[in-house]
Amino acid sequence: MNEAIARLLSPRSVAVIGASADPNKTTGRPVAYLQKHGFAGRILPVNPKVDRIGALTCYPDVASLPEVPDVAVVLLGAERAHLAVKALSARGCSAAIVLASGYTETGEEGARRQRQLVEAAGTMRLLGPNTIGLVNLTDGIVLSPSGALEMDTFPAGGIGVVSQSGGILGSLLSRAAARGIGLSKLISTSNEVDLELADFIDHLADDPATKVIALYIETVRDPLKFRAACLKAARLGKPVVAFKIGRSEAGAKAAVSHTGALAGADRMYDALFKQVGVIRAASFADLLDIPAALATGRRLHGRRVAVLTSTGGAGTLVSDDLGVAGFDTPAPDEATAAALRALQTGSEAVLDRNPIDVTLAGLRPDLLRGAIDALLASPTYDALVIIVGSSSLAMPELLAGAIEDCLPNSDKPVLAYVSPHAPEIGALLTQRGVPAFAAAESCTAALGGLLRATTFRPPADTPRAEAAPVALAAFGQGSLDEAQAKQLFSGFGVPCARERVVSGPMDAEAAARALGDRVVLKILSTQITHKSDVGGVAVGLAADQIRERLAAMAQEVEAKAGVRPHRFLVQEMVQGGAEFILGMHRDALGTAVLLGMGGVTAELFQDTALRLLPHDGVRLQPLAAADALGMAQSLTAWPLLDGFRGRPKADVAALVDAIVAFSRMAAQLGDRLVEAEINPLFVMPQGQGVCAADGVAVLA
Amino acid sequence: MNEAIARLLSPRSVAVIGASADPNKTTGRPVAYLQKHGFAGRILPVNPKVDRIGALTCYPDVASLPEVPDVAVVLLGAERAHLAVKALSARGCSAAIVLASGYTETGEEGARRQRQLVEAAGTMRLLGPNTIGLVNLTDGIVLSPSGALEMDTFPAGGIGVVSQSGGILGSLLSRAAARGIGLSKLISTSNEVDLELADFIDHLADDPATKVIALYIETVRDPLKFRAACLKAARLGKPVVAFKIGRSEAGAKAAVSHTGALAGADRMYDALFKQVGVIRAASFADLLDIPAALATGRRLHGRRVAVLTSTGGAGTLVSDDLGVAGFDTPAPDEATAAALRALQTGSEAVLDRNPIDVTLAGLRPDLLRGAIDALLASPTYDALVIIVGSSSLAMPELLAGAIEDCLPNSDKPVLAYVSPHAPEIGALLTQRGVPAFAAAESCTAALGGLLRATTFRPPADTPRAEAAPVALAAFGQGSLDEAQAKQLFSGFGVPCARERVVSGPMDAEAAARALGDRVVLKILSTQITHKSDVGGVAVGLAADQIRERLAAMAQEVEAKAGVRPHRFLVQEMVQGGAEFILGMHRDALGTAVLLGMGGVTAELFQDTALRLLPHDGVRLQPLAAADALGMAQSLTAWPLLDGFRGRPKADVAALVDAIVAFSRMAAQLGDRLVEAEINPLFVMPQGQGVCAADGVAVLA
Repeated sequence: MNEAIARLLSPRSVAVIGASADPNKTTGRPVAYLQKHGFAGRILPVNPKVDRIGALTCYPDVASLPEVPDVAVVLLGAERAHLAVKALSARGCSAAIVLASGYTETGEEGARRQRQLVEAAGTMRLLGPNTIGLVNLTDGIVLSPSGALEMDTFPAGGIGVVSQSGGILGSLLSRAAARGIGLSKLISTSNEVDLELADFIDHLADDPATKVIALYIETVRDPLKFRAACLKAARLGKPVVAFKIGRSEAGAKAAVSHTGALAGADRMYDALFKQVGVIRAASFADLLDIPAALATGRRLHGRRVAVLTSTGGAGTLVSDDLGVAGFDTPAPDEATAAALRALQTGSEAVLDRNPIDVTLAGLRPDLLRGAIDALLASPTYDALVIIVGSSSLAMPELLAGAIEDCLPNSDKPVLAYVSPHAPEIGALLTQRGVPAFAAAESCTAALGGLLRATTFRPPADTPRAEAAPVALAAFGQGSLDEAQAKQLFSGFGVPCARERVVSGPMDAEAAARALGDRVVLKILSTQITHKSDVGGVAVGLAADQIRERLAAMAQEVEAKAGVRPHRFLVQEMVQGGAEFILGMHRDALGTAVLLGMGGVTAELFQDTALRLLPHDGVRLQPLAAADALGMAQSLTAWPLLDGFRGRPKADVAALVDAIVAFSRMAAQLGDRLVEAEINPLFVMPQGQGVCAADGVAVLA
Repeated sequence: MNEAIARLLSPRSVAVIGASADPNKTTGRPVAYLQKHGFAGRILPVNPKVDRIGALTCYPDVASLPEVPDVAVVLLGAERAHLAVKALSARGCSAAIVLASGYTETGEEGARRQRQLVEAAGTMRLLGPNTIGLVNLTDGIVLSPSGALEMDTFPAGGIGVVSQSGGILGSLLSRAAARGIGLSKLISTSNEVDLELADFIDHLADDPATKVIALYIETVRDPLKFRAACLKAARLGKPVVAFKIGRSEAGAKAAVSHTGALAGADRMYDALFKQVGVIRAASFADLLDIPAALATGRRLHGRRVAVLTSTGGAGTLVSDDLGVAGFDTPAPDEATAAALRALQTGSEAVLDRNPIDVTLAGLRPDLLRGAIDALLASPTYDALVIIVGSSSLAMPELLAGAIEDCLPNSDKPVLAYVSPHAPEIGALLTQRGVPAFAAAESCTAALGGLLRATTFRPPADTPRAEAAPVALAAFGQGSLDEAQAKQLFSGFGVPCARERVVSGPMDAEAAARALGDRVVLKILSTQITHKSDVGGVAVGLAADQIRERLAAMAQEVEAKAGVRPHRFLVQEMVQGGAEFILGMHRDALGTAVLLGMGGVTAELFQDTALRLLPHDGVRLQPLAAADALGMAQSLTAWPLLDGFRGRPKADVAALVDAIVAFSRMAAQLGDRLVEAEINPLFVMPQGQGVCAADGVAVLA
């Protein structure tokens, strides 16, 4: 655990630089809130214009402070904050929180100020600038002027929150409090000149009070640190849930290959999150809903959910939404139905269906307890959702108590859906260990999050890749022509179509005779990437047609592209396989491999799979075979490879080998490989391998 | 307007049959609630065991009532309710509300009781049974024991609600009240033995207090009545919003054609809603969120949204979600930016971007008013979302007042997003005409609903179709063979491949020579529907190969299917087009035409379009050409027809003609056509038409 971060979150003394004596001013709030929420350490306000703030002595400057503070909250504007930071660093203060805005987020002058600030800090750690600070609910320490802290109390609990937006921190704090959701720490990192997202993930993973980590992400600045911190949290059994904004970014880039447009910035985040076990919240609401369920410590081991209700409509609503998301709501098994029937006599309850409707009789606490016990004990169910209807509202304590009594008998997740507007009963249930939701979609998202947390396994350390046998020197720099690109792919072990480079009609005919019955003739050029558009591709040629066709092609290409081709490729005809695209994409988050159906399917239907290459801290690593198989299986088009409607099964093993080989190339070449894409890669029927028929590569 | 329904919703006198004197009992509530919520008419309790309920005289039975009540609320159980209903009908009561459960929803015995109940009612109208009753907020009349009515007041407003679930009525009532969303009427129809969904849609369309109609739907029992009522509401400018449960139904059926599985019950509802202008709520929350926006009467005429904020994070959250849903958030035009800049001096506000961040200075009411006016006046924006941050909470009245002041200056929609937990300010804003939401997705859904309401145009009356020229007698009953099916399609104007039915090798060769270079040979059978699976299809045959191939095919089919084929089809080879599937699907909602990409695309990617045939009240009508074109354009695969990546454009006009012709066949044959599907329908390049190459049809 990092000492400075631990001290930042739990200081014994806090200096507040620029503190106002007026608690209604933003600059007056931090001292007021520290006192209001019961900070037990020493508060040291600094303001040359004031002698006292309430009972506290106020010091004229940092130099006059009677002790070195553990942490300083700097409330000065951007034009002066660096002076205080410099003085604090000189005194040996451990960390400063800089709230001022007006740094990089505002332009060049701000960027200059930000560099000045970093310089002033020296070895002292910085949170911010442009942050709203942090709140440690475990220990009742609030280092923030957020208006949300006007509330008197907040339930402390197991959810640690890191937000890159300050305003969002207040929103999460007040929303969680209203719903009885307990938080451990909230940190707003904002501009992240020093301490950043990954530092706090790493810290919260070690924090005994934190069971789940919730992230509000605008951008991941250090992907390797982020990966390492998330995998550490996963290994320590602490699920990480993230909401990421910027989903609607254009993300596409102009590139030789299609892979860039298909990958997109947001899909790279998706891939990153999946690979390090981060559960992605689809909505801002999910960022509290999913952690609320995970914080109970209960884990979901299957998709079968019992819905217990005393009112028809809402039970159906919840079941229906669960069904849409792929959860099952099976009817009770006979033993469970019998146990339920034994609880009540002569009622109109319907007990052989799910939702299990115990009708209004279900409001009797003894019956409710019995029903919950029976459902939690049933081998038919992995989780239980209890519907709270209008009629339950008269007896919130009885209801909550009855449910709570049953919790120790099982470790299956128990959630509640509150049908009428009744926030107080929702909060009561949540605090008693039964996360309560006002939307069916929230129940579903929470169960989905629970399932993701159970199924993720942090990857084992991948072995170092062997050194490349490929002599790159032969390829030079820039765009490779098609033949060179395939030599490169082939060198790393991707099977490519047999072909010969020719420069004239006689060569071409000889090549065609050597390559078999029918061949493909293409121009070979590093300048023309869309060969078909200029008439530079002819398929299905017999050897005796090729001379004439070559001459015609040369003429057509010259007419259309303004360049007379001098080199051609004669290639065997590859037929009978399914066409795929296999490409490489790199952005700030890392290097990824993309797989999709070829032709127009990948583009129109967005049916592609993306995996980031692992990184061992020193260098990129190839994908594991299991990952490559997972990519293929995650495609909507996967059934086409797997014998859909009586088709022959495709050679998936060869496809997996090709993906791994391609990823090894990307890992070993690193930044030298600017772009690489095989399109199409023919995946042949089982036993017949795969074959790259065309491709592009750009070397740096 | 239906008299009986008008009286049911606004009775002058209400009999309560089985009323209890104990207001805590369910049977005591209706009288108590009528009084609590200020019913001005006469309340007539009936209960032989009680003389008085408070100040009211209680009558021993219906016969003793001193007057004929307009409406009776029947609180008796299912075993006795019909007796009261019979007595009420005999007295000439206009309508009865039967709350008891224990009817069809519980099985056969219940179904018998339900028939008994209908018989007892005679000409008296019935609401229910198994209903929670109704609430008329416009006039303060509550005919319901719903626990939600314990609340003291509800905001009356412009949203009329019809729910097929009783429990949901209470949920909507309490949720709307808590959020300041005003309702006009709520009716729970439940078992719908008489009055049903469509009756109330029709009524609310005429109700002056109702501006928007919200529906909670389990099933549409009378699709024609439903269509007519929804189209009436649309013509009267009253948007209808519906949430439909049962989305996760399996819905697929085993059928000769694929169309059934591709259509599915929920997709039929989708098609129905779209065609009659019903805005489908994607979540239960949307069922209040979208009507809340529509009830303001403001209409959205484009996708460009200004987001005005005083806090960074939440503004970005809303913009991001809008972007995901296809809304634009353009930066202010220069004139607007100048107007915004003129409002404040020397601040850190960022005014050349959107979200437009006026920073905390934006909390000054004069500045806020100026900013809102500038944005609503700007030609760059179609709507405005105002972000309410934590800092606004200290001044809810000022904020709400400032926003309200600006509303009369523009008719563009203005919504609010409340970032912290602050339900009271949300309710305040909503009541002042600015619907407020706690989720970015709700803002987006509300704007989406506003846009749908603006863009829907009720269809013009379609002209009667001409009588069919096709002599059906020739086809007999049951499954047609492939050649007959195509004769049927062709008779209605769908172009089909040229072909000849043959019975032996010599015929086949002659046919092949007549049909051109290469042909397709298939077995012809009404029993074997999957011809390829048994070796019954051969493509690309030359005339001189066909005799030998026919003999081999006959053998293979006999070996695989156990039936020796005696009839064959020789068909021209159709090549170079895009393959589509064109099918017919019928279920309780109506008859629909389905269009999708052929091959595996339709199935794997679920890329199909579905349209219900119009109905003029007498008979089914064919689709209009515009609808047929809309179907093709709504496919994800549409770009393939429209010149995607330099492909030739397809003959869309011919495809439209074929869809219309196919729909005319479905309309004219009605129930006689059990199944019909063309698969594949080749859509050739522009000017070259379409061609049905295979198909199935089943006649009743």
